[in-house]
Amino acid sequence: MPRILDNINKANDIKSIKPQDYKRLAKEIRSFLISNVSKTGGHLASNLGVVELTMALHLFMDFPKDKLIWDVGHQSYTHKLLTGRKDQFATLRQLDGISGFPKREESECDAFDTGHSSTAISAALGMVKARDLKGLSNKVVAVIGDGALTGGMAFEALNNAGRLKSNMIIILNDNNMSISENVGGMANYLAKLRTNTRYTGFKESMENALTRKIPGGREIVHCLKRSKDAVKYFMLPNMLFEDMGLTYIGPIDGHNINSLLSALKNANRANKAVVIHVITKKGKGYIPAEKNPSRFHGIDPFYIDNGEPVAKNQTASYTKVFSSALVKMGKKNNKLVAITAAMPYGTGLSSFKKHFPDRFFDVGIAEEHAVTFAAGMAAEGFRPVVAIYSTFLQRSYDQIIHDVCINNLPVIFAIDRAGITGRDGKTHQGIFDLSYLSHIPNLVVMAPKNKWELEEMLEFALSYEGPVAIRYPKGEAYTGLMENREPIRLGKSEIIDKAGDIAILAVGSMVKTAVMVKNRLNDYNIKVTLVNTRFVSPMDCEILEELSENHNVFITMEENVRIGGYGQQVSDFLCRNNKQDIRHINISLPDKFIEHGGVSELFERLDFDAESITRKILDELQF
Amino acid sequence: MPRILDNINKANDIKSIKPQDYKRLAKEIRSFLISNVSKTGGHLASNLGVVELTMALHLFMDFPKDKLIWDVGHQSYTHKLLTGRKDQFATLRQLDGISGFPKREESECDAFDTGHSSTAISAALGMVKARDLKGLSNKVVAVIGDGALTGGMAFEALNNAGRLKSNMIIILNDNNMSISENVGGMANYLAKLRTNTRYTGFKESMENALTRKIPGGREIVHCLKRSKDAVKYFMLPNMLFEDMGLTYIGPIDGHNINSLLSALKNANRANKAVVIHVITKKGKGYIPAEKNPSRFHGIDPFYIDNGEPVAKNQTASYTKVFSSALVKMGKKNNKLVAITAAMPYGTGLSSFKKHFPDRFFDVGIAEEHAVTFAAGMAAEGFRPVVAIYSTFLQRSYDQIIHDVCINNLPVIFAIDRAGITGRDGKTHQGIFDLSYLSHIPNLVVMAPKNKWELEEMLEFALSYEGPVAIRYPKGEAYTGLMENREPIRLGKSEIIDKAGDIAILAVGSMVKTAVMVKNRLNDYNIKVTLVNTRFVSPMDCEILEELSENHNVFITMEENVRIGGYGQQVSDFLCRNNKQDIRHINISLPDKFIEHGGVSELFERLDFDAESITRKILDELQF
Repeated sequence: MPRILDNINKANDIKSIKPQDYKRLAKEIRSFLISNVSKTGGHLASNLGVVELTMALHLFMDFPKDKLIWDVGHQSYTHKLLTGRKDQFATLRQLDGISGFPKREESECDAFDTGHSSTAISAALGMVKARDLKGLSNKVVAVIGDGALTGGMAFEALNNAGRLKSNMIIILNDNNMSISENVGGMANYLAKLRTNTRYTGFKESMENALTRKIPGGREIVHCLKRSKDAVKYFMLPNMLFEDMGLTYIGPIDGHNINSLLSALKNANRANKAVVIHVITKKGKGYIPAEKNPSRFHGIDPFYIDNGEPVAKNQTASYTKVFSSALVKMGKKNNKLVAITAAMPYGTGLSSFKKHFPDRFFDVGIAEEHAVTFAAGMAAEGFRPVVAIYSTFLQRSYDQIIHDVCINNLPVIFAIDRAGITGRDGKTHQGIFDLSYLSHIPNLVVMAPKNKWELEEMLEFALSYEGPVAIRYPKGEAYTGLMENREPIRLGKSEIIDKAGDIAILAVGSMVKTAVMVKNRLNDYNIKVTLVNTRFVSPMDCEILEELSENHNVFITMEENVRIGGYGQQVSDFLCRNNKQDIRHINISLPDKFIEHGGVSELFERLDFDAESITRKILDELQF
Repeated sequence: MPRILDNINKANDIKSIKPQDYKRLAKEIRSFLISNVSKTGGHLASNLGVVELTMALHLFMDFPKDKLIWDVGHQSYTHKLLTGRKDQFATLRQLDGISGFPKREESECDAFDTGHSSTAISAALGMVKARDLKGLSNKVVAVIGDGALTGGMAFEALNNAGRLKSNMIIILNDNNMSISENVGGMANYLAKLRTNTRYTGFKESMENALTRKIPGGREIVHCLKRSKDAVKYFMLPNMLFEDMGLTYIGPIDGHNINSLLSALKNANRANKAVVIHVITKKGKGYIPAEKNPSRFHGIDPFYIDNGEPVAKNQTASYTKVFSSALVKMGKKNNKLVAITAAMPYGTGLSSFKKHFPDRFFDVGIAEEHAVTFAAGMAAEGFRPVVAIYSTFLQRSYDQIIHDVCINNLPVIFAIDRAGITGRDGKTHQGIFDLSYLSHIPNLVVMAPKNKWELEEMLEFALSYEGPVAIRYPKGEAYTGLMENREPIRLGKSEIIDKAGDIAILAVGSMVKTAVMVKNRLNDYNIKVTLVNTRFVSPMDCEILEELSENHNVFITMEENVRIGGYGQQVSDFLCRNNKQDIRHINISLPDKFIEHGGVSELFERLDFDAESITRKILDELQF
């Protein structure tokens, strides 16, 4: 039997599918996704959860005229399938293939590039205002998960959306299990009730209750109605969600296309922002993913029949090293507390949580709050470790400066996924942290060379009376150079090997590469001094001074963009101290956003692997 | 008659004042504040508004054991008065004097340094958790304005505070006029009603109404009660503020000490986070400030009898130049829209608002949303100008990268108050923007040398198909070099004067200083080439190449910290291109937080005035 999916080759093709075939199409899409993702890896559970929702949106909307914005964006696979990218799915998240996130450059049906959480309502509101100013009437829909709603900027956007006098639809995609059990008849009824023109009595009955039951209640209602400020509405007692200025529809069964279409059509009639509360099930339709949605959130290639990974990763990641080290330290120091922004597993904090539930805090997707909350604890004598990925910590830049570093508080930032992270692409590479952290006064910035050193750096940070950031990459923790265990001292590098008149100064993850480069250079009879910089801030000027006495080439290596990185600080040092006789070769990432692909593929493409770096150095040295 | 205030010389002294004297003390404090601020300048209106609130907090709390956190912090003058800093008030905001903001290093009664908005609840929650883990019982109180509550991180914090099982007090200091009229009997009644142990019926009556009036309502109430997630509560219909997990008390008359004390005592009994909604009047007790609270928000020295400023500033600021230019451009281009985060006056956007109300957007104190909202409009063909001060734009760092620059959208950032801003001190200096913006791919970063060039750069930005940041300093727009009008081209500097073998490359505000330095050097018969860099990103490498042919000293000047700044990019250029024969002198701000004081005083102290810079150059050149 031919697939219905085969008839869908471009945007809006789904509109010619007969309603009785929707279920079959949903099933085909799920098979397609499971089959493809089992080979490419990717975000599976979230995508299986929104198959019907995406179909309903595509039946309701007209692409590319209408604008659909996916918050976070990793749940956009079905959207990609329905907009002409089916044949490219084998290349999903592969180098030069299609992205796992919406990309404007990939399709005019992708309205906005996303990747980080909680941005969709803001972007959508901008598109609504643009539409209104242009006098157009296209639809604008933002799809945001319940988790992303804990991010402050989603609230900022809702607060502004509450003032809107034209149509905007916000889909709250809620995949919390405890709520999904409650959908059904009542939910459908409520949806009809609140969007039906016959519905009038509800809000009024609340107001009546207020007026009759409370002395002075009539005046309260009067005052509330006069006030124009949505936040005040929110802050005042007895305020309903609708009083913030938004219309609510829901909860809706997110796997029932008819319910969804009916809610969307009703929502579209309002001259204001409408929140449609949709209940979906993560991993829907694939038992292993339904049972364990967290494991199938982002997954490597797996066997479809049992969901087991194709390649079992036996090596210990930096995440695991961090995870164990923190538990060990937590046992010795009861002032150590740990904070995550909704990522206890990804960051490795889940074992700390298990051992010290009272000293573990998951604040939700709220990186700004996480950092300032840590500052508050540090001000009162605790030692908070804030574990946030490099790319997500960007959101706390002001809080790091303003709340941690101006107050000079001993907060430890454990920055995982620093450097190239691979298949999630531009929005997820951790390539800016040295640039956005090094210039912040009072902040110590470190990067470990290997497994041992990450533990040592954590111990050092715990003993240091000020803020410390430790950045380390995704993936396997380097187990080389385990014999190099020079104790860590503030601002001091470690000399791994002293030889020759060329010095390599490598930051963190690049020490491993530097060892390989050094060996290759040795093959050309070039003797190399190898320095593990350890600290990017404060930079070790003494070692630079010392090396400059008997080296005439400095090669800096860092897994960060060039501008604002360690290398430029070294160039500055050389210029400042009139070391004109020293040649400086700065090996860093190019100053551009880096696309998706395998980490080692990307390293090769960027000439950032040991082989390419060696060749580059030989060229520069005219060998 | 001796002042009661004279008996208050340290924390907790206020507790020995008789209640019948509170009014007199409040009056004395107001006189003291008006008299002092009329000489020193400072934040007046907000401080006059919280005199009684601060007194009540000091009667209620025990310093320094209890922790009081002032959101933003410029309203902490009375707190300073009551904690032993009365005699230092003549030095308020003066170099080496006391700060206009809470400072931990100034007093152990200042629990947390603040300056930016919306941070207090997060920090306070950290202190609450610290207290609980230590098994102590000290009070923790955050005071936050109604404006600051629009900032997303305040919501992130409330969302977490809703889960709290111990005491925390959040004072919502509401000085919105339209609400302050409503305080009085009803408010006092409501306060008693909601904190009195006899109050039970209210929430239940709402639930009853829900159960009886709505088909299926009983089940709804049941479901709601079972759900644990505060955000879901907030999103679900019919949810009360209390259902977010916080207790609400208010509104309370913020000028009635007895009402305030009663509310605080009641709030203190709860084992959860309590919001006390306090209504205050900005400028209270000083007619000119009551009438015009905005003008008395932050004010220079003034005459007490009429509130008029002592020194009338006749010179046109960059803010005014920006303001007029934008209106002019708005007339020619109907795709130009302007966005502010609650600062239409400070940024100069108020005239754009007046001319083009439909194309002006004030999103509240919500810098993150402001930027992504702009990205949304830009994606749909508009040209948004986002006007945010350098220090506050720090909060949008991730949105600039993720929503504007990855999407490569033509958003224009008008960054006022870049560089040293003076008396507000550490939290408000705009000294990091070149460092946090230059490394962002796709972003063009510019700085104008004078009044004319700011207009030209705005015109250039409007014609450019990508994101552009323009940074300019506080205060008078430079009107020198008005004859130098080389048209602006992407990434190209402007040569002001070509002479000699020393080249000064000055960024934006430093061109004015560079002219003075050049003249001084000429007195020593040193001929100088002067270059206005215009672009920091992309850096003009061609001019560097060209200059390197016949100059042997490059002097870079920028009003930004050294790390990550323009100068380090130039050092990098010199090293990369083996320009060993060129000496580079990097004139930039020190890599530290810069205290409060007059702008020119700070320049002198930092050896950043023309005289000091000249001397430094002469020293370096061994003249």
